Amino acid sequence: MAEPLFNRLCLVGIGLIGSSIARVAQKRGDIAKTIVVTTRRAETLARVRELGLADVVEPDAARAVEGCDGVIFCIPVGAYADAMRHIAAHLAPGAVLTDVGSTKGSVVRDLSPLLPAGVHLVPAHPMAGTEHSGPDAGFPELFEGRYCIVTPLPDSDPAAVEKVKELWRRCGSMIETMDPITHDKVVAIVSHLPHLIAFTICGTADDLAEETKEAVLKFAASGFRDFTRIAASDVDMWRDVFLNNREAVLEMLSRFSEDAHAFGRAIRRGEAGFIEDRIERGRKIRRSLIERKQA
Amino acid sequence: MAEPLFNRLCLVGIGLIGSSIARVAQKRGDIAKTIVVTTRRAETLARVRELGLADVVEPDAARAVEGCDGVIFCIPVGAYADAMRHIAAHLAPGAVLTDVGSTKGSVVRDLSPLLPAGVHLVPAHPMAGTEHSGPDAGFPELFEGRYCIVTPLPDSDPAAVEKVKELWRRCGSMIETMDPITHDKVVAIVSHLPHLIAFTICGTADDLAEETKEAVLKFAASGFRDFTRIAASDVDMWRDVFLNNREAVLEMLSRFSEDAHAFGRAIRRGEAGFIEDRIERGRKIRRSLIERKQA
Repeated sequence: MAEPLFNRLCLVGIGLIGSSIARVAQKRGDIAKTIVVTTRRAETLARVRELGLADVVEPDAARAVEGCDGVIFCIPVGAYADAMRHIAAHLAPGAVLTDVGSTKGSVVRDLSPLLPAGVHLVPAHPMAGTEHSGPDAGFPELFEGRYCIVTPLPDSDPAAVEKVKELWRRCGSMIETMDPITHDKVVAIVSHLPHLIAFTICGTADDLAEETKEAVLKFAASGFRDFTRIAASDVDMWRDVFLNNREAVLEMLSRFSEDAHAFGRAIRRGEAGFIEDRIERGRKIRRSLIERKQA
Repeated sequence: MAEPLFNRLCLVGIGLIGSSIARVAQKRGDIAKTIVVTTRRAETLARVRELGLADVVEPDAARAVEGCDGVIFCIPVGAYADAMRHIAAHLAPGAVLTDVGSTKGSVVRDLSPLLPAGVHLVPAHPMAGTEHSGPDAGFPELFEGRYCIVTPLPDSDPAAVEKVKELWRRCGSMIETMDPITHDKVVAIVSHLPHLIAFTICGTADDLAEETKEAVLKFAASGFRDFTRIAASDVDMWRDVFLNNREAVLEMLSRFSEDAHAFGRAIRRGEAGFIEDRIERGRKIRRSLIERKQA
């Protein structure tokens, strides 16, 4: 077995992603010698103890990070600034600070100004998830075969960047490096906009269900079922994603709206060729994904 | 085994749905004594012969329907009027004419005026499908446990309506009766709008993929993958669905657009409460579907 990457690794937050990291670290043994978990809610802490997910369970994040050479934020991105203010003075010199948030520009914006000298910030985003949340939802295979996008800063310490990449390699992920702005654009279209649409159409259907005496819910066909699977996601996480990737999400929503209106106009005017072209493009993208084995 | 429902049943069109009906009829034996298949393309006819899907394979639809006591249109809804003009004079007195189209108002509009006296029209819509098409894509279990919506006309012959319902019961479906206008509204929100959105977002992503040098396709996360599965559907079928359920699709697109813009406005203004409420509604609908065992 390889030498553990970290001597003492602190997970700040222990939901689906944090508890999956804890589980893969326990299973492999070469990620951290000691796993520290900190989270604010007493029930969650108790559950972490019951599940045996950590060597050390500590309610106070400032105490939890003391002496750790690795710290991973696994909380909703909107909670980063407050958490950082609380722990900054307690971070060990030389420690690697990373995260798993779905937005990266906001992470740089919120954490960089509070970063103590000698602590290395390397943001990352494992592109994996399910519609379930909480410490019971995690499993060690969650990251296998999925991409993890690492977004180092121009002045990030190369050894710290390599350590974060190696962490995700050991979790089974494929590593990609990107700047935070490109990352935020890409996830806005492949993940954030589809979620916005799924949440929205569920509401639209809910309004209509009242009018049609629930026939809508009864006949939810396969198209709509796929949308509701997406729409079952965690509230706090997704609220923070939308609020912290605002510009990119609004840009993608605007592009999508223009395209949807053009489609609607073609239906109104009976433009068969335009409609066929749009359907063909969907099929083309689908084929691209299948060739890339992402579907 | 029960007495076959039809003596001679003609399937006009033999794609995913038609070939699934043929397969369940062959498997059960109590749907039709003789299965006739007609389709225009020579390759498809040859494939039907190879697959052994029919007792009689006939390229000319007018000849195919002669002497049949049951005829099912399994072609894109935009092709109904032409097909009906071709076969109307050849339909046997007392025959039951039904279909499997995803729009029902257009079917009544296109077929009723051409219906010979003594032929019974009972439109139906089995709510089942996959993203695959053609005679190879069908399988006998496709309709099992899925709803089939039957939309009889006010003057439909009760015996003919019962025959169509029994056909779908024997295919394993649950039967619901609805008027065509309500049907068209319900499917516009649960199926047609989700498909319009999926086709559109694939195009939006495709445009963006050119700008980001394909990073978008590479990182298609789970949200987007679900959308592309929907977007892989058959071009002719979906073009005709949009053109033949125009009013309901445009109404649902308009409702959805208003809701999506309201969501975007909340993001722009940082209204956390509004966003949380929308996400909660998505989760609520998801829970409703799970309770109804449709998810």
